[in-house]
This record gives sequence, C-alpha cells and structure tokens, in this order.
Amino acid sequence: MLTKPPSIALALDIGGTKIKAGLITQEGEILALKRMKTPPLAPPEQIIKVILEVAHDLCHQTGLEILQLAGVGISIAAFITAEGIVTATAHLSPAWLGYDIRSRLNRDLPANYYFGLDAPVPTLGEAYYGAGKGIQDFVHITVSTGIGAGIVANGKYYTGGLGWAGGVGHIIIDETSHRICSGCGNAGCLETFAATQGILTTARELLASNSNSLLRSITSGDLNLLTPKIILEACLQGDAVAREVFNRAGHALGLGLVSLVDIVAPQRVIIGGGISQAGEVLLGPARALVQARAFPPRLRQVEIVQTPLADLAGIFGAAVMVFHDIRINVSQEVLN
Amino acid sequence: MLTKPPSIALALDIGGTKIKAGLITQEGEILALKRMKTPPLAPPEQIIKVILEVAHDLCHQTGLEILQLAGVGISIAAFITAEGIVTATAHLSPAWLGYDIRSRLNRDLPANYYFGLDAPVPTLGEAYYGAGKGIQDFVHITVSTGIGAGIVANGKYYTGGLGWAGGVGHIIIDETSHRICSGCGNAGCLETFAATQGILTTARELLASNSNSLLRSITSGDLNLLTPKIILEACLQGDAVAREVFNRAGHALGLGLVSLVDIVAPQRVIIGGGISQAGEVLLGPARALVQARAFPPRLRQVEIVQTPLADLAGIFGAAVMVFHDIRINVSQEVLN
Repeated sequence: MLTKPPSIALALDIGGTKIKAGLITQEGEILALKRMKTPPLAPPEQIIKVILEVAHDLCHQTGLEILQLAGVGISIAAFITAEGIVTATAHLSPAWLGYDIRSRLNRDLPANYYFGLDAPVPTLGEAYYGAGKGIQDFVHITVSTGIGAGIVANGKYYTGGLGWAGGVGHIIIDETSHRICSGCGNAGCLETFAATQGILTTARELLASNSNSLLRSITSGDLNLLTPKIILEACLQGDAVAREVFNRAGHALGLGLVSLVDIVAPQRVIIGGGISQAGEVLLGPARALVQARAFPPRLRQVEIVQTPLADLAGIFGAAVMVFHDIRINVSQEVLN
Repeated sequence: MLTKPPSIALALDIGGTKIKAGLITQEGEILALKRMKTPPLAPPEQIIKVILEVAHDLCHQTGLEILQLAGVGISIAAFITAEGIVTATAHLSPAWLGYDIRSRLNRDLPANYYFGLDAPVPTLGEAYYGAGKGIQDFVHITVSTGIGAGIVANGKYYTGGLGWAGGVGHIIIDETSHRICSGCGNAGCLETFAATQGILTTARELLASNSNSLLRSITSGDLNLLTPKIILEACLQGDAVAREVFNRAGHALGLGLVSLVDIVAPQRVIIGGGISQAGEVLLGPARALVQARAFPPRLRQVEIVQTPLADLAGIFGAAVMVFHDIRINVSQEVLN
C-alpha cells in the first residue's frame, strides 16, 4: 500500500517591497522558504520570472515536482479577481493593471492557482495557522507599508456591505495634523503615524532635534536611507530615538484600535506586518490606550497580540486558499 | 367564519429622559401612541406605575384588551437580561440594579414580555420598519443623550466577540480635547461633541462670544435651561448660533462616521435619536467628511440617511421583538 504524500502548497506573498515564497504542508510546516526583494516598480514579466524561478528552486530544494503540489496560492499587493486578473494596485507598477497572472503562469507552470489581495489573505493565515485559530471573532491588522485589517466575525471573513471592511489605515487620528498620506491623499490618518511613511516622518522629526542617535551613524547622516528595519534594529540596540519612534507609532495605533475595538468588539486583535516586529515597544502603548479608553470596560478584555507567524502570514494564507479551496473575489469594484 | 384579529404589540421605549409607548400592528401601523417625560432618576416602582397606566390608557383608547395583544416589548436604557432583570444602567436610577421588571409587571399585567437594551432594539425597528428594510449590511446610530450604533452584518445583528459591538460613542475624536465625557470619564470622545452633553457644551462656548442669539432670549439668559430641543427649535427659526452648534456636532459625527464606514463598510448608515431631528444641519457636515475621507473611495457610496421613524425606532423595535420572538440577552457581562 502506498503512503499518501502530504498535501503541499506553493505559497507566495508578493508585496510592494518584498516577495516571500514557501512550500507549506497542510499541517502548517514550512518545507522550504525564500525571501526576496521586490524589484521597485517591476513590470509583471519581471515578477513572473521571479515566481517561476523560485517555484523551480523550492521544488528542486525539496525534491518535489510541481505536479505533486495541491496548488499555488498567491497573495498580492493588488486588487485581483479570483481568475487572476489585476484590477487595481497602489503599491505595484501600473503596468500590472489588467494583467492576467493566471494565464501567464499557466503557460510555463500549469497548476491549480488561487489569488487574493494581501489584505484578506494573511488573515486567512492567522485564522488557520496563527493567533486566530479557534477564535470566532478576531481582527488581524497588518502594519507595514500601509495598514489594513481583516475582520473575522462569527467565524467568517467579513467584507462589509460595500465589499471592503477593515480599512483602519485611513481613519482620522489627528484632524489638525499636516501629515499628508501617500495612500489616501488626506492628512492625519493612521498610516501617516504608524505605517512606514509615519515611522519615517516621526524619525526625521525626532532626529531634527536629537543629534545623538544610532540612526545618524547607521545612515551616515543621510536620513533618506532610513527604513523601518533600520529603526527597528537601532531600537533593539537600545537607541532612545528609535524607541520613541515606535512608541509614538504605537500610541497612534492605539488611537485607531480604540475605534476598532469599540466598533467591532473582537475577542482578539492580532498585529502583524513588518513594523509589528518592533514587538512590545509598539504594542505596549497601543494596549495602554485600549486599556484606558475602550468602552464599555468589558472591551478592555480584548487580547492584543503580536502575530506568531512573523512576516509569513501572507504565505500561510496563500496556502490556506489552496488547501481549503477559497477563491477570494475582491475586484476593482471596491476602489471605484 | 371569524376574521383573525390583527397581531398587535404594546411597545415601550424607556429612555433616560423620555418614555414612549404605542400599540403597533404587525404591519407597522401605530394604533395609539403616548409620549411622556421620564421622571428624573425615578425608582423602578414609579416607572412601573407609568407603564401600567399607559398600557391601560392605550388599550382603553383603542378598545383592546391586554390579553388580545401578541405581547409587550420593552426597550430600556439599561442592560437587561432576556428574563427582564436590570444588570447595569448609566442613564436610569441605580435603584434599578437587579430589579426584576418582568415579575413585577406580570403581577399586575400578565403578558408575554420581551426586553432589550436601547442600543440593539431601535436597530431592529429600522431593520423591519425603517430605513434598514431589505438591506443586509447597515449601521443604525442613535444620537441622543448618548451615542451608540447597532451593526447589521450579513442580515444579522452583530454583537461582536465580546458581546458589545457598535460602541461609536466613545471613540476618540480629538485626543487634545479637555471635554470630559459624563459617560466614559475620558476626554474628547464622540459623545462630548455630538451627544446632548456635546451639543450643550458647544452652545455655551459659542454663546460666550455671541450675545446675539435666540438661545439667549428663549432661556432668558439662563443657559442652564438649554436643551438640545431648544437649540433645535432656534435652529429651525434660523438662529445662526444654534445652526453652528449642529454644524459642529455634525462635523464630529462625521469624524466618527469615517472610522465606522472604513471599518464596517456598510451600505447605509441610518441616523436616529432626538438630535438627528436637526436633519441636514447635522447630516450635511457628517456626509461631507465621509465624502472627503472614507477610503477606499468606493466607501463614499455609503448612504447616510435620517431615520424615517423619527423618535419611534425604539417602540418599533420593541414591537419587532414581540412579533418575531426575538429575545436579546445583553447582560451586565458586557460592562465588567
């Protein structure tokens, strides 16, 4: 009698700055993993080449054939139909608009494909393999280049009547602020304080009056070289300015969380995305605000936790689409 | 052959300042209606007496017997178990805590009773008889002594994982504000700008630098006599200060709505409660903010409408509980 081979998915997460790819078993084990930089504003063909290469590499590395895979799941920083056609994107090159990823990939790599916007997909990852496992009502927030949330209500992903719930990135944190958001074009929204743009703005503001910071030496004084990752590293090395940057981002995140928790009343809030790797420096002030301000007080029981999936919720979610045959249809409609 | 009598409910809405009672048919016709003031901080027995009298009056007025009614539905400004025991209240006398309304009423008026907190109940009214009819995803906001919302998601009332979703009254509108909220004890939340306390504070602030306003003559200069209703009347008579009061409340409401719409993405937002009777003076600025700030832009398609049920969503909802056998269990748990 033959042993049934484990069900394995090729899972990809194509973000604005990074691409991650992994082979994941249905049990949630990562058999092989690769992280790459997204070539800035890369046209589709360039990314397709990366996908094909990494698929080949990972299979080669594990001795698997692509045909043995249950399927390929792709989480992408773009609105995409379940059929794999990109309909809108803020973080990828405009050349992606209308691009039919599935047909193109199928030509060189025939497989069972699943596609999804990188807002719902990582939430699926949390629901099946992360901090949302077994929880009926949770919210998963990605704090990264942008900020977005996936809401799981009564055990189901909630899209809202207009097809796009969980948009906490652009709620108004400070109406008097002059920080213009590169995402929505307005001023004072959450992303201008706690997403990459917010982190960098705060760092530059603080450095203007603090000559004594690791951030100056690391960047040799060229603040254009600052990235959230650099600030995170400085923070881990005890740099006070870097710490204050995340402290302020955490405070702003907390202001947003009060709205989210008061309105949605989730049992748990899971914070993921690159910036969440700051951990307690970010989560501490956010929690403090929710503890002080969520109302009624019962809501202060909400658990605010860092994702256990590090930066891999996207590929776990991509694998979930494959294993559970979930086809997400978030088309451009939601942007019009 | 006998004609089946119409199904009729006695529906009550016991608020912090007003009591409304009506006999409502299943088709939504109000056969008789009575509005009364809630005696300030009245102990339970005093309100029970009012309920018994009004039940008698309304039946007498319509020639009905209480036994002919399908049941009695009571919406109340207190957390109450489905069994009719009050477990917490911010707007009624503390003497209500632990009070068993059902047993007490059953003694003098045996009937089929339904009880519910005045946050979900009016939303039921909107869902069956108001602006939520036939809409799967809507939010109903009551703007009154307090501000609260009921969320209908995928056609169902959403309570959230912690049993208390829709609390938009205490989301933070202006973190730098010194307006202390009489509800949550913190400063700068939505209620301090758009609920009764907010309306009155704004009116007093504006009047401090505006001697020329109807509000001065109506109150003979005693600003302690100001009520939202008086300001509303002055507004309808064209008073510029009164108009500005609602304009600012509407702006604050809009800031809250941006959070709500971004997070929940409802098809429609229904604004009810006494203060909503200001109509466009309030709704206009709220809509303008949502039009400018909701994101993605698709969310700007949300319809923001005034309730068609005037101040009667509560009694309509109370009738819905009776006709549809809906027992709402929002106990004190949510407050602890």
